Amino acid sequence: MLYITIRGGVTAMYRSRMGGGRPDPSVLGYLSSAGADSEIIAYDIVGSQAHVLMLLKTGAVPRRAARRILDALQELKSSGGSLPAADADDPAEDVHELVESLVVKRAGMDAGGRMHTARSRNDQVSLDTRMKVRDDINAMCGHLLDAADLMVSLAHEHRRTVMPLYTHLQQAQVGLFSHWLLAHADALFRDYGRLSDAYARVNKSPLGAGPVGGTSIRIDRDYAARLLGFDGIVENSLDATGTRDFAVEYMAAVSIMMSNLSRLAEDLVVWSTSEFSFVELADDLASPSSAMPQKKNPDVLEITRAKAAEAAGSLSAILGMVTGLASGYGRDLQQTKPLVWSASRTGISALLAVRSALRGIRVDVARMRRVTDASDLVALDLAERLVTERDVPFRVAHGVAAGLAQYARVAGTSVRKLSIQDVRNAAQQQKGAGQVADAETLHGIASSLGAVASLRSRASKGSSGYAEQRRMIAGRRRLAAKLRAKLGARTERVEDALALLEGEARSA
Amino acid sequence: MLYITIRGGVTAMYRSRMGGGRPDPSVLGYLSSAGADSEIIAYDIVGSQAHVLMLLKTGAVPRRAARRILDALQELKSSGGSLPAADADDPAEDVHELVESLVVKRAGMDAGGRMHTARSRNDQVSLDTRMKVRDDINAMCGHLLDAADLMVSLAHEHRRTVMPLYTHLQQAQVGLFSHWLLAHADALFRDYGRLSDAYARVNKSPLGAGPVGGTSIRIDRDYAARLLGFDGIVENSLDATGTRDFAVEYMAAVSIMMSNLSRLAEDLVVWSTSEFSFVELADDLASPSSAMPQKKNPDVLEITRAKAAEAAGSLSAILGMVTGLASGYGRDLQQTKPLVWSASRTGISALLAVRSALRGIRVDVARMRRVTDASDLVALDLAERLVTERDVPFRVAHGVAAGLAQYARVAGTSVRKLSIQDVRNAAQQQKGAGQVADAETLHGIASSLGAVASLRSRASKGSSGYAEQRRMIAGRRRLAAKLRAKLGARTERVEDALALLEGEARSA
Amino acid sequence: MLYITIRGGVTAMYRSRMGGGRPDPSVLGYLSSAGADSEIIAYDIVGSQAHVLMLLKTGAVPRRAARRILDALQELKSSGGSLPAADADDPAEDVHELVESLVVKRAGMDAGGRMHTARSRNDQVSLDTRMKVRDDINAMCGHLLDAADLMVSLAHEHRRTVMPLYTHLQQAQVGLFSHWLLAHADALFRDYGRLSDAYARVNKSPLGAGPVGGTSIRIDRDYAARLLGFDGIVENSLDATGTRDFAVEYMAAVSIMMSNLSRLAEDLVVWSTSEFSFVELADDLASPSSAMPQKKNPDVLEITRAKAAEAAGSLSAILGMVTGLASGYGRDLQQTKPLVWSASRTGISALLAVRSALRGIRVDVARMRRVTDASDLVALDLAERLVTERDVPFRVAHGVAAGLAQYARVAGTSVRKLSIQDVRNAAQQQKGAGQVADAETLHGIASSLGAVASLRSRASKGSSGYAEQRRMIAGRRRLAAKLRAKLGARTERVEDALALLEGEARSA
Amino acid sequence: MLYITIRGGVTAMYRSRMGGGRPDPSVLGYLSSAGADSEIIAYDIVGSQAHVLMLLKTGAVPRRAARRILDALQELKSSGGSLPAADADDPAEDVHELVESLVVKRAGMDAGGRMHTARSRNDQVSLDTRMKVRDDINAMCGHLLDAADLMVSLAHEHRRTVMPLYTHLQQAQVGLFSHWLLAHADALFRDYGRLSDAYARVNKSPLGAGPVGGTSIRIDRDYAARLLGFDGIVENSLDATGTRDFAVEYMAAVSIMMSNLSRLAEDLVVWSTSEFSFVELADDLASPSSAMPQKKNPDVLEITRAKAAEAAGSLSAILGMVTGLASGYGRDLQQTKPLVWSASRTGISALLAVRSALRGIRVDVARMRRVTDASDLVALDLAERLVTERDVPFRVAHGVAAGLAQYARVAGTSVRKLSIQDVRNAAQQQKGAGQVADAETLHGIASSLGAVASLRSRASKGSSGYAEQRRMIAGRRRLAAKLRAKLGARTERVEDALALLEGEARSA
Repeated sequence: MLYITIRGGVTAMYRSRMGGGRPDPSVLGYLSSAGADSEIIAYDIVGSQAHVLMLLKTGAVPRRAARRILDALQELKSSGGSLPAADADDPAEDVHELVESLVVKRAGMDAGGRMHTARSRNDQVSLDTRMKVRDDINAMCGHLLDAADLMVSLAHEHRRTVMPLYTHLQQAQVGLFSHWLLAHADALFRDYGRLSDAYARVNKSPLGAGPVGGTSIRIDRDYAARLLGFDGIVENSLDATGTRDFAVEYMAAVSIMMSNLSRLAEDLVVWSTSEFSFVELADDLASPSSAMPQKKNPDVLEITRAKAAEAAGSLSAILGMVTGLASGYGRDLQQTKPLVWSASRTGISALLAVRSALRGIRVDVARMRRVTDASDLVALDLAERLVTERDVPFRVAHGVAAGLAQYARVAGTSVRKLSIQDVRNAAQQQKGAGQVADAETLHGIASSLGAVASLRSRASKGSSGYAEQRRMIAGRRRLAAKLRAKLGARTERVEDALALLEGEARSA
Repeated sequence: MLYITIRGGVTAMYRSRMGGGRPDPSVLGYLSSAGADSEIIAYDIVGSQAHVLMLLKTGAVPRRAARRILDALQELKSSGGSLPAADADDPAEDVHELVESLVVKRAGMDAGGRMHTARSRNDQVSLDTRMKVRDDINAMCGHLLDAADLMVSLAHEHRRTVMPLYTHLQQAQVGLFSHWLLAHADALFRDYGRLSDAYARVNKSPLGAGPVGGTSIRIDRDYAARLLGFDGIVENSLDATGTRDFAVEYMAAVSIMMSNLSRLAEDLVVWSTSEFSFVELADDLASPSSAMPQKKNPDVLEITRAKAAEAAGSLSAILGMVTGLASGYGRDLQQTKPLVWSASRTGISALLAVRSALRGIRVDVARMRRVTDASDLVALDLAERLVTERDVPFRVAHGVAAGLAQYARVAGTSVRKLSIQDVRNAAQQQKGAGQVADAETLHGIASSLGAVASLRSRASKGSSGYAEQRRMIAGRRRLAAKLRAKLGARTERVEDALALLEGEARSA
Repeated sequence: MLYITIRGGVTAMYRSRMGGGRPDPSVLGYLSSAGADSEIIAYDIVGSQAHVLMLLKTGAVPRRAARRILDALQELKSSGGSLPAADADDPAEDVHELVESLVVKRAGMDAGGRMHTARSRNDQVSLDTRMKVRDDINAMCGHLLDAADLMVSLAHEHRRTVMPLYTHLQQAQVGLFSHWLLAHADALFRDYGRLSDAYARVNKSPLGAGPVGGTSIRIDRDYAARLLGFDGIVENSLDATGTRDFAVEYMAAVSIMMSNLSRLAEDLVVWSTSEFSFVELADDLASPSSAMPQKKNPDVLEITRAKAAEAAGSLSAILGMVTGLASGYGRDLQQTKPLVWSASRTGISALLAVRSALRGIRVDVARMRRVTDASDLVALDLAERLVTERDVPFRVAHGVAAGLAQYARVAGTSVRKLSIQDVRNAAQQQKGAGQVADAETLHGIASSLGAVASLRSRASKGSSGYAEQRRMIAGRRRLAAKLRAKLGARTERVEDALALLEGEARSA
Repeated sequence: MLYITIRGGVTAMYRSRMGGGRPDPSVLGYLSSAGADSEIIAYDIVGSQAHVLMLLKTGAVPRRAARRILDALQELKSSGGSLPAADADDPAEDVHELVESLVVKRAGMDAGGRMHTARSRNDQVSLDTRMKVRDDINAMCGHLLDAADLMVSLAHEHRRTVMPLYTHLQQAQVGLFSHWLLAHADALFRDYGRLSDAYARVNKSPLGAGPVGGTSIRIDRDYAARLLGFDGIVENSLDATGTRDFAVEYMAAVSIMMSNLSRLAEDLVVWSTSEFSFVELADDLASPSSAMPQKKNPDVLEITRAKAAEAAGSLSAILGMVTGLASGYGRDLQQTKPLVWSASRTGISALLAVRSALRGIRVDVARMRRVTDASDLVALDLAERLVTERDVPFRVAHGVAAGLAQYARVAGTSVRKLSIQDVRNAAQQQKGAGQVADAETLHGIASSLGAVASLRSRASKGSSGYAEQRRMIAGRRRLAAKLRAKLGARTERVEDALALLEGEARSA
């Protein structure tokens, strides 16, 4: 168990006031943050490097001691995430104590004992969390753009795939499959925006805020922040150590993204029923039934829906933790960590899963077209033709179209196939319809309607018409490329800073 | 990682329709329930034993085959939770497939291939979950009674420990520490009731419901249910396989219990501030500050508050998963399992943690008394004395008492220490106060007030007076004993059934 | 606006310590509970009657004064919910103050000023809330049984209506529409159980608990509880005034019921798509499209889904309010009231709405049957026939059935229509299938399969077979009748007590 | 009731397919959005003006008809929010139908019947919601800056008010009251950022997206968007009508702001206990006790905490509504509106309430100082002095300081008042302490410690030292002014556009 791996001993001095008592084993796991901490060991070490380099620069720690600490940190770093227990008899309370105790062990107390100068676990844990979240945001944004790219490519492929568009899960208008794909891509682009806005608030350094009120030791918080690739500091020390709104915001952004993905999943679940049969998932993302061999269950999509609910629940949990909490660090905040880590895992794997699902999807283009043609989705087109060609007020035209649609429905046929006599009969049932146009004209318009005609004439900006698909696909390609460049630059700034830091840590 | 431990191969036949494709590794973990399943392996095996014994009884499986299956299951059982992978090249999708494939491997297809007769993964997973939840409820109820017992014992110990009672976190009335303890014990007793009511709905067997609509094979669902210690069956097969309201209810009960415990925790956090200094936690449940050696942080209580928020978030998540879900088993339901397991872990460890905290708590009896005496909490007592002794309408008496309290407050003294002249002055400021009683009488009553007098006269049922504490402590002791007996009987019924089942499985 | 209606003045005395300051208008609405209080005025008056009768009995208030108070309360009662403002210049803070001030105005201070003897707003608001919740539970249970009754009646009507049963929204087994209806009825019966279990914890009187610690005035809490039809008292005064777990539990039960109803709604939304076309809602519960006249949207079902999410959010909110709250009444608890009222409104109206939807639903029996027949849902039946008739191990039989199903699917036909040659071909592709049975036998079994045959042979308890429907319908009728009798008795006990109270209040 | 006010009749034609049936009264309220719609009537009218002007520009509606529609809209606008029912016998389903029917009534069908050309209720409701939310965001940001300004002003006033800073609610370091105020101001500034980021995604026009797939009628969506002051359009018509992520994001931002305010409230609730007595609320924001006259309850702060939980619950509800919802408008989305409106009300009134609370707060500066001096919060200062003056490794210095603090605590005195002999004794108990410094030196440092000295030397950026307060106050003043200017410009852009639109609507 992870717990054993990273807990370890620290000198008794750390627990100065506590006497020799050891925590009751039954509640040790309850109190421990060891599981969650394993994800930030690396950040803790890198943060410590920057802190020591800063202390060296301001003169708060002499070069010789700094050198020994940096060597010890380097050693820990190269051991990967599996740190040895420092002292089996006196386990460390958390990753911060563990790293310090291991440094003291290697560098000696005279040097290693200086590492914690002018900082506290309270700014450290906030630092580590922020470093992890910024990495997670960048990774998630990359996967998000991959998924959006795939949607845009599929949209290009399906820019002529006719299908019904739905409202209330009822067929509503003739449309194109590409339109649906682009709608979900646009939602993802907004998710990208939310994550990036959160990033700007996450990527600030709390390091040097101390336990709550700062320090009298000479430090340079801006310098340490720069070393770590931050875009500035969280200035107020009480705010820097005690607030987790950045984490809540991140989780809200992930949760919104998950709800967007869950809607895509729901559509595909419905469309892969036998009754719809619009799409079929690739075998490796669906499961066979244990009892019914002919079935293929859309597992990956169902899980995505459930994970969206899970993300929303985690958001609710973190909000509950911070609401009504007194200012200043409280141990309650420890419990925010697993929620944040889980949001990252969920968001990234959901993007991968949705991408896999879309990549392997079989779209039954012929069936979509067949259903569209059979569905008499042209009433609105008819009304609009009456508006544009016959100058009929829309509300009146809508009434006439409704009358024809109802007539056709009762007669078991479609508006397009009504005979002139049918149209005449229908018009008679519809008060005032006769004044709109004579039966011949109405019949002429009605019989010329159809999916392709509808999509050719659908020219309003952002509509599901043919022309707009081409324009929007090109636009999204440009947008995705622009965002990818920005993301690359943002990621590089952090990586460059950390590479530089690594260099300085070696050469200091 | 657990994942490796319990995944394993099954014969290709299981995936009949899927072809040879293997899930994309990037989404395998996303889809997998392996982590959560590790907690129900044992239940899956026991459930399979009962199922086979039932099939044997109805003649649906011949004795020889039954015997071989039972032997294979016994073998798996004795291997503990760490099942070997059946086939590294073709991992099992879940614990149910894994157990079956291992049985087939040991017993041969001709026998082992009969184990899954007349059941499905859909009733199996519901069965395993219900078996686990009933065990968790019983365990939790036991820990709950332990915690309540401790509260009642402490109440007995502190039945004379005077303290202020608070509303709005403002001192409100003189009270006793025992009263606070008993209030929290009573909340726990209600939690016991909620968990037990949930138990009655949990402890029904879904086994034999099949995938969704039952089976044509001759089975005896009631018999299998009895073998497993259930109090009946979930009859409707669609309901039995597709509904998780029992799990939501359980999580709601745990969540309510956690919110009750969080209020106890909040009180103790506030009372262990320097400013209150009513209580001090034992060293091993508090943490020293990394930067401020004189501090002791009430970690176990803060964590308890945070865990209550976590439990509420998990409840929100499971509700989100099942809301709006189509009837019949859906893979979304897989994601409910980790939430349920986590509720069990949280609830049980919180009860242990709170018990540890209370057991080691140092109560500063003298300080509580000092604060009470200094706090002038006798205005209501004064008003009530005017009501009972002078027949003054309560609202008028309340006004007079308020006037004296305000006067004393401004004068920097307490109502009890006002001089006759003070009382006279106060009465003059208070319109109509003079008609209530003359200053001498008022002064006489005021100066006779005090914590002990107040608690002696506080005789209303359930009040914080001395006499009521004794009565309530005795009552709670009886109640706890009664509940413990009931819990014992309930637990035994399950254990006896399972012991019998084990015997039958060996001798069949 | 309601606010104006029930706010009113109280004598300045009430705000003894506060000076003349009036709340800033900008935050008055924020602080006010007036909107929520309008729903408990009646309970506050009735609760006051019982309190005064009790005070009269114990001698804490003289008969003459009691008589005047009771007359004043009677007067308020007959004015319905729209109480006049007592004093426009000094608005009451809440309904409790308002009622008292109106009584004082009518009965004079010497009598009316005695009404608040030995109680506090803190026990009053808990009392009023509990009285309202118990009424709401009983009303909801009545509507629930109405809905369940309708489901059972419809099940009877549709006990031969063949349809596919679904898992993962995929067709899974042949079934009956009655089975689906009964599954949802069974969920409602469990909801009834949860509400009734909550009722037992709700129907306890907190009256007489005082502000937090009880009173020295002679009272008889049990007597007042009996007068009000309670089944006992919430004993501990701190617990009685400060805990709202009963309200959280009630909201959890409503929320679970809503999630059950939302699943029914989801099924019907999907089934009323053009693609499924199993059901059609009555016109008055669906909406026409503003732009597409041929559409009918299943609004009432969509709203039900959304209301379930709303109920879950409210549960999350109330849990958030009480979690981490210090013991003893806090003003935070005021905000729980609108959440509780809203849960009642939502739950009751959802039951009415679902009942309306079901009552007016058109079921396309022929289409359901057609889809079932076309869907080749007999693979499991085939496997089970091989198990029972040919003694083939289920897992092997399942493989053979899967092979035939797959063959039929590829060949674009159904298992039942495969020729002997087809069966032979299919068996050759399936390793080992030949040993199971010869092609003639397999073909014989396969061609005899079908929906009706399947449902005749489906005999397991709780299954979707014909016989089980009859048995279950009869059982649910008995159950509903039994529950209705219990509910009647429970409701009557409260009504009888209140009628008696009314009589005593007149004659005292 | 509002319901009556805005419901009204529309011509029967609107419900073309529905026949004459009227909704069952028992579920009408359940289905109705009338309550929520009352908040967007004005936006619906203004949106209609822009739509008609756009149709006029593109030639889709002739000038004469446009003129008559615009006149009718103007008439409705001047009637304020209380629109008459158009037809008592046939109530409108929602505000959009109502406005249209009233226009048709005034302008005649030949003109008025053209208003709905090329739009749908689905883009209309999204338009109205976005217009309301952008106004709400701007209003909220204004109140937010007011609150932040007050905090900064109070910080200036209290830039020398010494107090303990807390972590875990335990005294941690000497600090300044201004530091606490500035921390909360900084959180508000981040909230401003989140709201403004959301604004950028909200302020896009969906108008012209049609029901789901756009229109064939010639329209200019960008022009209509400009007329309404939007910064662009939501392009994809499926996305524009069916997505509410902008509303979820807004509610998340409000919820985070509320959680920040709730922490401020919690601090003040704790600080206004008798035991802390740091602050006292103004009388008009606190309530007197009904039973205990000497008490003043911090109601406005408790309500703020509860409202934060309510906001989180509403966020959870809206996430639940949209998660797993099929794409395209669904009636579920109607239920998002009351949640959004309520978030606006809650957020704005909470900012007002917190501002009122802070404005009227009495800070007991002397008591804060007294508690600080008595609290021996100088151990960290001592350790840091040893680090800077004696070159002692921090961890060793921390141990020595801890030893002295513990010694002082046991001896019932403070570190600063230890005698040389005390220091010597303490050092002997602390292994290695002797090597750090001789007792005279230690004693010299210890006795020179103190609150003022600590705050003078506390120079790290963002710390609670004197100098940093001045710097940060100046910085926040500049920041607030900058944000206010931006907010002004943003608000003006919308107002200018709408004024221009009004002019064009009159002169067209």
